Amino acid sequence: MQDLHHLVVVGGGFGGLQLVNSLKGAPLRITLIDRRNHHLFQPLLYQVATTVLATSEVAWPIRHLYRHRAEVTTLLDEVVGVDPVAKTVQLGGGGTVAYDTLVLATGATHAYFGHDEWEPVAPGLKTLEDATTIRRRILLAFERAELSSDAAEREALLTFVIIGAGPTGVELAGIIAELAQRTLPEEFRHIDTRQAKVILVEAGPRILAAFSEPLSDYARRSLEKLGVEVRTGVPVTACTAEGVTIGDTFVPSRTLVWAAGVQASPAARWLGIPCDRAGRAIVGPDLSAPGIADVFVIGDTASVIQEDGKPVPGIAPAAKQQGTYLARLIRARLSGRPAPGAFRYWHQGSLATIGRRAAIIEFGKFKLKGAFAWWLWGIAHIYFLIGTRSRFAVAWSWLWIFLSGQHSARLITQRETIQQRESREGP
Amino acid sequence: MQDLHHLVVVGGGFGGLQLVNSLKGAPLRITLIDRRNHHLFQPLLYQVATTVLATSEVAWPIRHLYRHRAEVTTLLDEVVGVDPVAKTVQLGGGGTVAYDTLVLATGATHAYFGHDEWEPVAPGLKTLEDATTIRRRILLAFERAELSSDAAEREALLTFVIIGAGPTGVELAGIIAELAQRTLPEEFRHIDTRQAKVILVEAGPRILAAFSEPLSDYARRSLEKLGVEVRTGVPVTACTAEGVTIGDTFVPSRTLVWAAGVQASPAARWLGIPCDRAGRAIVGPDLSAPGIADVFVIGDTASVIQEDGKPVPGIAPAAKQQGTYLARLIRARLSGRPAPGAFRYWHQGSLATIGRRAAIIEFGKFKLKGAFAWWLWGIAHIYFLIGTRSRFAVAWSWLWIFLSGQHSARLITQRETIQQRESREGP
Repeated sequence: MQDLHHLVVVGGGFGGLQLVNSLKGAPLRITLIDRRNHHLFQPLLYQVATTVLATSEVAWPIRHLYRHRAEVTTLLDEVVGVDPVAKTVQLGGGGTVAYDTLVLATGATHAYFGHDEWEPVAPGLKTLEDATTIRRRILLAFERAELSSDAAEREALLTFVIIGAGPTGVELAGIIAELAQRTLPEEFRHIDTRQAKVILVEAGPRILAAFSEPLSDYARRSLEKLGVEVRTGVPVTACTAEGVTIGDTFVPSRTLVWAAGVQASPAARWLGIPCDRAGRAIVGPDLSAPGIADVFVIGDTASVIQEDGKPVPGIAPAAKQQGTYLARLIRARLSGRPAPGAFRYWHQGSLATIGRRAAIIEFGKFKLKGAFAWWLWGIAHIYFLIGTRSRFAVAWSWLWIFLSGQHSARLITQRETIQQRESREGP
Repeated sequence: MQDLHHLVVVGGGFGGLQLVNSLKGAPLRITLIDRRNHHLFQPLLYQVATTVLATSEVAWPIRHLYRHRAEVTTLLDEVVGVDPVAKTVQLGGGGTVAYDTLVLATGATHAYFGHDEWEPVAPGLKTLEDATTIRRRILLAFERAELSSDAAEREALLTFVIIGAGPTGVELAGIIAELAQRTLPEEFRHIDTRQAKVILVEAGPRILAAFSEPLSDYARRSLEKLGVEVRTGVPVTACTAEGVTIGDTFVPSRTLVWAAGVQASPAARWLGIPCDRAGRAIVGPDLSAPGIADVFVIGDTASVIQEDGKPVPGIAPAAKQQGTYLARLIRARLSGRPAPGAFRYWHQGSLATIGRRAAIIEFGKFKLKGAFAWWLWGIAHIYFLIGTRSRFAVAWSWLWIFLSGQHSARLITQRETIQQRESREGP
C-alpha cells in the first residue's frame, strides 16, 4: 500500500469528492484533507438559513462517504501551505503530508470588495455556521420587534436587506418574504410580520444575470409578487449595525445578508502562481498549476479560460466536471497512456427558485418557469443529495412545508441571547 | 382582553407547557416567557449529543405551538427577578410584566457540587448547545486520535468518561460505546475505534437507582456487553483537561461528560422563600409559594413533599402532572369554586434505554427488559413528541439507524476547530 502513487486532495467540496469518486479502483493511495468533517451541499444552504431544512439534511461526514474505500484516508485538518520542491503539504496542526500528485480544491469564501469591516453586520452564507447565524438573526429580529415599543426600532428590525441578486440572494429574499407573509403572522401578538420589508439589492442592471432576460424579468416579477422590493443598478456603499446605504439612500435595518462577492481560497498564494482579481489560481488547459510539477487546481479556487476564450463559471457542476476530467487525466498518467485534451466545460443549464411555488430553468434554448419548474427543481436537488436517508428526509421536510405551510427548523441556537446581541450591536 | 385575569408563566418546559395547554378556553390572558425560543424534549437530548437525532427533531419553537391561541403571548426574554408586592416580573431586557397570577416553571441546570471549575472540561447536558458541544467533542476526539502519532495521547483521546449513572448517563454511555464499536470502525485508517474505552462512573452503590435492583443489574450487564466499563460506589474527585480522578485513580481522558448533579433555577431567591439543598423552592401542598399571594412554583425548580412524606421526583411526568393540577386550581379560583385538595404525584413508571437494542421498563409491579422493552420505549417516546412532522422525522431517523446501523447527524459545527480546541485545552 505504501508503495502506491499517493494522491493528496485538499478540499471535500463538489470538485474534490467527484475526483475521489471517479478514481474508484485506480492504483492509488488517496488522502483527502478538509478542515471540516463534512461535505456541504451548498445549493441548499440557504434553506438552512431560512428555517426550511436542518443542518444534517445538507451535510454529510466525509469519512463516512469513503468508509468502504480502504485506499482513501480522510484527515480533518487545515492546510496552511504547500512545498512544491519537497512535494509536501503543511497542516495547521503542525504535521506535513507528502504527495506524488496534489490537487487543490479548496473553494472560495465571500468577498467584501475591500470592506471586510462589513462582515460582522452583513454575514455571508458559505458554511453551516453561517447558515445558523443568519437563521438566528432573522428569527431574533422578529422576536425583538415583538418586544420593542419604539416604532422606528420596530421598523428597522422588520427590514431585511439581501445584498447581491445571484441565485443565493434571490432564494434568500423569496423565502424570508414567505416566512414573514405566510409562516409567522399568526404567531405574534404585538407586531404584524406581514409589515416586514425584504429588500434585494443588486449593483448590476438585473437580477440572476446568468439567465436570459425574459426569465430574469419573470423572477423579478415573482419576487415582487411575494412582497420583495428589488433594487437593481445601485451599489451598496456602506453597511453598519444601524443599516445599509444603497447608493446615497440610508435604509435602517438590523438584518443584512451578504450574497455578493466571492474570494478564492489562498491556493494560488501557497503555490506562488498568478491569480485573477478574485484570487483564483490561473491554471493551464489541463488544470495543472503552471510551472509546478504534479499539482492541479480545480473548482472555485481555479481560474480556467477555455480555448474559445470563455471562462469556466464558479458553480458546482463545473467543479464536478473538473473532478471527472482530472480523474481521467490521473488514470492516463498512471498507466502511461496519453493525457486527455484540454478541459472543456459543458453547460448543463441553470436553475433557481423563487419562494415556494416558482422556479426558472434554462437549458440552452429550453426555458421553463412557474410551478412545474419548481417541481423539476425540487426533484433535481433531491436527486443530487447524497444517500437514501437524506433524500427521504429532505423530501419529507419539503412535502411537509408544502402541505402545512409550516417551517420546522426554527431554532435559535448558539450562545448569543437576545440581550447579548443588543449589547454588542447597539440598540 | 386587557381586563381579563393575567397569568404569567415563566418557563416553556414540560410543566409550563402542560399548564398553558390545560388552560385552553379559560377566561384568561396568558403570557409565556422563556429565554429560549424553543421547548426542548429533554429525554431525547442525549441522542442529539450522540449523533442520532438532529437538533430540530427534539425542539419546537414555543410561539408556534400557541399560534392558534390568540390569548397566549410568547415572549423571548430572560426573567431576572420578581416583585411580589408590585406583582411584576423583571425582564433581562429591562422591561417588566405585571401579573395577576404568576407561575414559575424555570427548571434546573447541572450542579458540580461546589466544583464549578469542572464545567468547561466536563460539560453537562441540558440545552441544545450542550448537546452540540458534547457531540463535537466526541467526534473531534476520534478525529484527533486519527491524526495523533503518540500512543498515550491516542489512548486518552479514545477514553470517554461519563459521570453519573442516572438514565442520561446510562443512555450516553451506551450510545457512545455503540458509536465506537459499530458505527465508526470502518471509517478510520490509523486507529481502531473499537479500542475506545467508555467508562461510566457512579458514586452511589448501583446504576439507575430509581429502578429495582434486578433491572438495575440487567442494565449494568447490558452496558458491559456493549463494552462499557461501569464503576459504582466511587466518587469523582477531580476533573481536568488531562483526565478525571475516580476515587484515588487518575484516568487520562479528553472527553468527560457530566450527568450527575442538579441545581434548581433561582426561583426561590427571586421570591425570597426557603429552598432545599439543590436550590428548589419549598412550596405548599397546593404548589403555592408560602406567604406570597398568587405565586406558584412547579417542576424541577419546586420542592414538593407530599402528605405521605414522599418528595415528588424531578422528572418530566411529575412536572406535567403539576401543570395539570395547577390549571385545575386556577380555573377553580377564577370561577370562585373551592380549590382542589393537595397535589398528589402519581408514578406512571420508569423507562431507560441501553444502547440500540435493550431497554428496561418498570410500572409498579410490571417489569420488562430487553428488545421488546426497547420497542415500547421507542413507541412511547415518539408518542410524546410534539407534532406529526417530528414523529415522522424521529421515527424515520430511528428506523434508518436500526436498518443501516449508520448515524446521520454526525456534524462538527460551531467555530471551534481541531486546532483551537488543542490550544485552549492543552495538548
